[in-house]
This record gives sequence, C-alpha cells and structure tokens, in this order.
Amino acid sequence: MDEPTWVSRMTLPLSIASLVYLAAYSWLVIADLVGPPRTVALVLVAVTWIFFIVDYVVRLTLAEDRWRWFRKHPGALAFALLPVLRLVLLLDRVTQLPGLRRTRGAALRTGIAVYGGGVVVVLVYLASLSVLEAERHAPGANIVDFGVALWWSCVTVTTTGFGDYVPVTMAGRAVAVGLMFGGIILSGIITATLASWILERASRGHDDEEPATRGQARAILARIDGLAGPGDPQGPGASHG
Amino acid sequence: MDEPTWVSRMTLPLSIASLVYLAAYSWLVIADLVGPPRTVALVLVAVTWIFFIVDYVVRLTLAEDRWRWFRKHPGALAFALLPVLRLVLLLDRVTQLPGLRRTRGAALRTGIAVYGGGVVVVLVYLASLSVLEAERHAPGANIVDFGVALWWSCVTVTTTGFGDYVPVTMAGRAVAVGLMFGGIILSGIITATLASWILERASRGHDDEEPATRGQARAILARIDGLAGPGDPQGPGASHG
Amino acid sequence: MDEPTWVSRMTLPLSIASLVYLAAYSWLVIADLVGPPRTVALVLVAVTWIFFIVDYVVRLTLAEDRWRWFRKHPGALAFALLPVLRLVLLLDRVTQLPGLRRTRGAALRTGIAVYGGGVVVVLVYLASLSVLEAERHAPGANIVDFGVALWWSCVTVTTTGFGDYVPVTMAGRAVAVGLMFGGIILSGIITATLASWILERASRGHDDEEPATRGQARAILARIDGLAGPGDPQGPGASHG
Amino acid sequence: MDEPTWVSRMTLPLSIASLVYLAAYSWLVIADLVGPPRTVALVLVAVTWIFFIVDYVVRLTLAEDRWRWFRKHPGALAFALLPVLRLVLLLDRVTQLPGLRRTRGAALRTGIAVYGGGVVVVLVYLASLSVLEAERHAPGANIVDFGVALWWSCVTVTTTGFGDYVPVTMAGRAVAVGLMFGGIILSGIITATLASWILERASRGHDDEEPATRGQARAILARIDGLAGPGDPQGPGASHG
Repeated sequence: MDEPTWVSRMTLPLSIASLVYLAAYSWLVIADLVGPPRTVALVLVAVTWIFFIVDYVVRLTLAEDRWRWFRKHPGALAFALLPVLRLVLLLDRVTQLPGLRRTRGAALRTGIAVYGGGVVVVLVYLASLSVLEAERHAPGANIVDFGVALWWSCVTVTTTGFGDYVPVTMAGRAVAVGLMFGGIILSGIITATLASWILERASRGHDDEEPATRGQARAILARIDGLAGPGDPQGPGASHG
Repeated sequence: MDEPTWVSRMTLPLSIASLVYLAAYSWLVIADLVGPPRTVALVLVAVTWIFFIVDYVVRLTLAEDRWRWFRKHPGALAFALLPVLRLVLLLDRVTQLPGLRRTRGAALRTGIAVYGGGVVVVLVYLASLSVLEAERHAPGANIVDFGVALWWSCVTVTTTGFGDYVPVTMAGRAVAVGLMFGGIILSGIITATLASWILERASRGHDDEEPATRGQARAILARIDGLAGPGDPQGPGASHG
Repeated sequence: MDEPTWVSRMTLPLSIASLVYLAAYSWLVIADLVGPPRTVALVLVAVTWIFFIVDYVVRLTLAEDRWRWFRKHPGALAFALLPVLRLVLLLDRVTQLPGLRRTRGAALRTGIAVYGGGVVVVLVYLASLSVLEAERHAPGANIVDFGVALWWSCVTVTTTGFGDYVPVTMAGRAVAVGLMFGGIILSGIITATLASWILERASRGHDDEEPATRGQARAILARIDGLAGPGDPQGPGASHG
Repeated sequence: MDEPTWVSRMTLPLSIASLVYLAAYSWLVIADLVGPPRTVALVLVAVTWIFFIVDYVVRLTLAEDRWRWFRKHPGALAFALLPVLRLVLLLDRVTQLPGLRRTRGAALRTGIAVYGGGVVVVLVYLASLSVLEAERHAPGANIVDFGVALWWSCVTVTTTGFGDYVPVTMAGRAVAVGLMFGGIILSGIITATLASWILERASRGHDDEEPATRGQARAILARIDGLAGPGDPQGPGASHG
C-alpha cells in the first residue's frame, strides 16, 4: 500500500479519533474526574493519541523519500503531537466558498485567516484545559475553574498579562510560555497577511504600468524570429530564451 | 427600487440614527439611569439598532447577486452590528483633502490611517461604555466610573495590561477579549501600512532602473510589426501579446 | 526674507533653545522645585516653547503654498509641540558615516534606525519627567522618584505593563496612553524596517534573474530603430515609448 | 598573519572558551557561590571574557580596512560583549540540512529562524542568570530562585508582564529593559520573516506571468543584432545594454 491510499483510508477514523480525544480530555478536566471515570477518560485520551502517532509513523514509513516527507509535512507532525488540531481541517469547506479564491494571493490569505483563526480557537481551548488540570489542586493557585482558565488563556495569548490570574506550577507555566510565544507568532501572521494585502492593493493599477511579463518577453523573441522568416532556417531563432 | 438608490436615500437618516444610538447609549451608561429614563434610553438604542439591521437586510435583498454583495460589503455588516461605527464615515472629508492622494499607495495608506484611527477611537469609547455597564454593580468590581473605564480600555487595546483595573464579570471579560484581539489587529494594520510605505520609498529611484512595464513590451511588439511594414499583411503581427 | 533663509538663520538659536528647554524642565521636575526657582524654571520652559511656536508660525507664513508646506513638514510641527525632539537632529552626523548609505533602501533604513532610536530615547526621558511631575504629590501615587519613573516608562512603551507602578492621575494616565500607542507605532516601525531589509536580501540574486529594467526596454526600442536604418526617415521610430 | 588565518586558528579555542564562560557563570549564579569557589568562578568568567575581547581587537587590527571591517562584523562585536552567543554558531549544522536551502529567500528565512531561535534561548537563559544574581539578596525582591527567574524572563521577553514577579534593583531592571526591547525586536523579526514568506508564496505563479528578467532583455538585444547579420559590422550591435 502506498502513502496516498493510506491517507484516504484513514481520513474518517482520524476525524472521529480527534473528536473522541477532545471530548475525553474536556470531560476529564472540566468534570475534575476521580476514580474509575478518570481511568476511562485517561485511557480514551491515551488510545486516541497513540492512534495519531501510529498514523504518523506509518505514513513516514510508507513515504518514498522519508527525509523529504518529514520536511514537507509539518502539519502531520503537529496533528500527531496535538490530535485536536486536526479539527481545524473541518474548516476546509470555508476556504472553498465561491468567490474567496480569485487571485493566488487572496486564496493564500483566506487560507491563513481561516486556518489561523481555527488554530487560535483550538489552542486557547486546549491551553485552558491543560492549565486548569495543572493548577486546580496546587496550593496557592487561583486558576481553579474553567471560565477563569479560558479568560486567563485569552489574556496570555494576546500577551496582555493583567496578572489577576497567574499559574504557579511548572506545568501551568509551561502552558503559559507556549501561549505567549504562540501569541507572538499569531500576531506576526496577522500582520504579515495584512502587509501582503496592502502591498497587493497598493501596486494594483493600470495594466500598462505593471512589470512586463516573461510571457511578453518570449512573445517578442518569437516575433523577431518571425521577421527573420521561414526561408531562413540558419537564422537566429535556434534556441528560445 | 435598486440598491444604489436605496443607499443614497438612507444616507442622512442613518447618520442621524447613529448619533441617536451613541447619545442614548452614552446617556444610559454614564448617568447610570434607572426607572422610566432607562426605559426611554433602552428603547432609543433598540430602535436605532433595529433600523440599521433592517437597512442591511433591505440592501442584501435588493442586491442582484446576494452572496457576492455579502462578501463585498463587510463594512455594511459591521455598521449593522455596531451602528456607531458609521460615524467613522464622517472622516470621509479628511481623506479628500488636496495633496493627500497623489499615488495609489499613498491614497490607500491615508485611508487606512484616517479610518483606522477613527475605528480605534469609536471602539475604545464603546468598549468603555460596555465594560462600565457590565461591571458597575458587580460585587468585587473596580471599574466603576467612566474615567477608569476609558483608562482601562486604552491599557487593554494596546495589550499593556497593567492589572490595576480588571473586569470580573462574563460580559466585561468578553469586552476585554474583543479589545485585546482588536488591539493585535490594530497594531498589525499600523505595521503593515508602515511596511508598505517603507518598501515604496526604498524602491523609488532612477526611472531607468524600475522594472520594464507591460506597456513598453507592447510598444516593442508594435515597433517590430512596423519593421515588417504595411506591405506585409501576412506578417507575424497577427495577434498582439 | 524667504523661508530657507529664515531656517538657516534659526538653526543655532533653536538648537540652544531646545537644550535650555530640556535643562530647565529636567531641573524643575527632578529637583522638585518650589518658590522662586520654580518660577524661573517655568519661565525658561515657557519662553523656549513659545520661541519654537513662533518659529513654526513664521515659517508657515513665509511659505509660498501654506497648505502644501503644512503637509510636507510634519517634523516642524512635532518640534513646535515638543521642542526637545529637535535634539534628535544632532544624530544627523551618524547617518552620514561612510559606508552606511550604499543603496537607497539601506540609507532609508539607517535613517529610520538612527532617528527612530533617538526619538524613543527622548520620548521615554520626557515621559518620565512628565509622569513624575504629574504623580509625585498625588494621594495614593507610587511613581514618586525619577528612577522609578524611568523604569515605568520603559515598561509602558514596550506595552509590557508589569503593574508594579501605575499612574493614578489624569495627567499621568494621559502620558501612559501616549507611551502605549507610541510603543505600538515604534514596534511597527522596527518590524516594517526589518521586513524591508529581509525582502531586499531575499530578492537580491543573480543579475540575469532580476526584473528587466525600463532602461533595457528603451535600449531595445532604440536598437530596433537602428535596424530600420538612417536611410528610412518614414520608419517606425517616430515616437519612443 | 592575515585575519582569515587568525579566525580559522581561533575557532576551536573560542568555542571551548564560550562553553567555559557559560558553565562558570551558571555555576556561580545557580549555586549562589561564596568564598574561594566564587573567586574561582569569577576568574574563569573574567578570563574567558577577556579572551573574547582580545580576539576581537586582534581581528580589528589585522583587518585591511578597519572601519569597513567594524561595520561588516556586528556579530563579532556581539560575541565579544556576550561570549555565550557564540554557542549559536553550533546551529550552523542545522541550516545545512539538505532541502532547507532551495531558494535564496528560503535559505535566508531558515537562517533567521534557526539563529533567531538560538539567540532567544541563549538570551533568556543569560537574562535569567543575570536577574537572579542581581535580585537574590536584595531586600523586598521576589525573584530568588532560578526557576522563577526563567519564568520571569519568558514573561518579560514576550512583553506579557504578568507582574507576579518584578525586579526591584537597578541591575535587575536593566536586564528587564534589555529583555523587553529585545522581545520587540524578536517579534519584529518573526513578523518580517513571515511577511517575506507570504509575499513570496502569493507572487509565485505561472512562469509566463512573472516579471520579464534582465537575462531575457539581453537575449532580445542579442537576437536583434543577429537579425542585422554577421555581414553588417557597422550595425547597431556595438554595445549591449
């Protein structure tokens, strides 16, 4: 079996697995499970996570050039490490709406906006769950319910940092560091996308003032060869730029 | 009636409605109205808001291609959701000042700066009203007068977050999340506009070193055809790039 | 007298005035003057400030097209409002160092970096003085010595906002709002300058792959006319694109 | 001896010296040394630092054009001031991985990402050591162990500024100012690199629509000269643009 076949067969199972992962982890943390229900939720989280890692390893094994495949599929690695990110793929439909993909630049920016927004929502939700799990039972912690954890995640990912709620555990602070650096990258993506849009708008003008294209240069060369005429086989038209 | 006719007829009523909306909402919140005056102010806010939503629905209905109209008029949707944003349109005059629109890029940047600045002022003012309305009577809240609410909005929209004043209600925190993400987008717009200006300045130089234009390429093709001469109708000049 | 003559005659007096302004204001605030010395310092600040405003009005009056002069000289307006900003002009020498102005883009970026850095230093220093003057004797204020004021200004201009020191007066908060928005514009300028540098570096490559220039297009047109020959006055070379 | 010979001979000694510097400074601060061990660590730090400064002075002396060498080697100056930064050079290998340097822009961005990431890690680590050394024994300080110092450095470099831990000494605040401005430059570099990537992606399209190249323009000129023919030595092909 080759890698594309594997990918197409695994699409549905992996979508279901990412939903199971999200539901089990949310249930585990928000309900603050103890005893047997906690064990059940932990097993569900572990099994779905392992499922994603196995999928990644199988795809890497099936690839013809593994180092090349590894470089070309950072998204697959991100899905293996954080399975719920795969839910962002459901936004695929939005980027396909008619009229949103006119130019290459517009299509790229629409994709960045839609998937970028999706990644932010998923990361803020996951970070809220993780920080709540880490902090809830720590002495001196004040991030002890899910509403507060969500509020704290938003304050942190935008690098606002009011300081009304602050993590006190190693795990909670690791989540915070991820959110803060993630927030800087997020704001960089927003700015860069806006810059691309403004630059495209600013340079769009009269067609006669756009840079001459390579196609036009080739047309000029062909025209000159035409001048030399069909009765001139030793003419200068041997190789076309 | 077609959509442009409707738009031109509604310009004045909508401008008045946005002023009424702003005045009624400011009065309601800053004076902390109770009893019958509160009811009057709430009715004024509701009626003007509904007026804007009706206007949006009518324009969408009158449009020939509704999906296309929906995509092309995000501003109209923003006005329907936040009527006071329409006040920003009064800045129209500023962007028309002589000498500010020389190049296409300069006109775009002037527009972004003027409307962007207007949107920031209106949003910070509205956010101050909303957070004050949400927090004022909540237990443990410290954003309890309009001056403090304005100060807190500026600290939040710039993602500084001193933490001297912090919202404690769900509604107040929702306003904060809007301000923080709005602030990131605002700083992205400023950066992207500056980048466009620097790139235009850096590339502006000797005309001979600018990229050749499509107009020049067409001129070259025409000149070659001229070489072939008018007495050569079967010449290579059949179709021009 | 025309405007350039006025400017050249006022260069030295204005430089001295900006130093007097800075010294008098620093002395007034840092030494927390009272009684006659305070009056002397206030008079010095007022006189130098008025001197700058008069200079601006005279230049505006002498200009041929006043509206055009107003638009073209935002720096002169900034100097009139904040005389010490003029000290930044002393950095002129730095941008003239040999080897720093090779390309047009490099010269622009060097200028932005040198003057931008100078403006940040001057603004942080001025903001520290202003916030100290505003807060020092206010009840409940904690920005009460110059070292703390400098530290607070740096924390605010970078939009970090630790919250260990926070202004409590209207004037102090106005300074903070200026610093926070100034900081966002500052970080935008840094980012945009870096983006311009990276884009220039990324596109610099083999000369054959650079876009064809307008000069080359003109050379091609001239060459084609040469083909038609000097004995062909009715040739196609009538007008050159 | 010329400068390149010196550089190649000093590569290994300087790498060892930067590791010794890092180990001695870490040991000094984290173990909070007193008495003779502190003296040993301080001597090691001083000796390695002086070694780096001597290396810089020797290279500057050996250079043919010293002012030019000074401008062209800001990195060497940075290594002399902060020897551990030299560890970042070990990341050299990463940027050489196959497949990461396809286009000039991609190679530049890979280099920025790898070295930029390395510089951030080294600076955050060094800042944590420095702030801990400065604050640990100060009255009223709360940054008193290395874990807290690391957490505080991350919160500061991202300009989040929760305010749960804040430096109170002059030296600690100087470290903070460096981190905050460094963080703004860091986020500027991230944004500018992303912008370069998006702009390259957005403009990459059908080859026929790329701007015509200078190489093509030269090919056209050569072709026209070919038309004039080898039997036309006085032809217009004398000088090629």
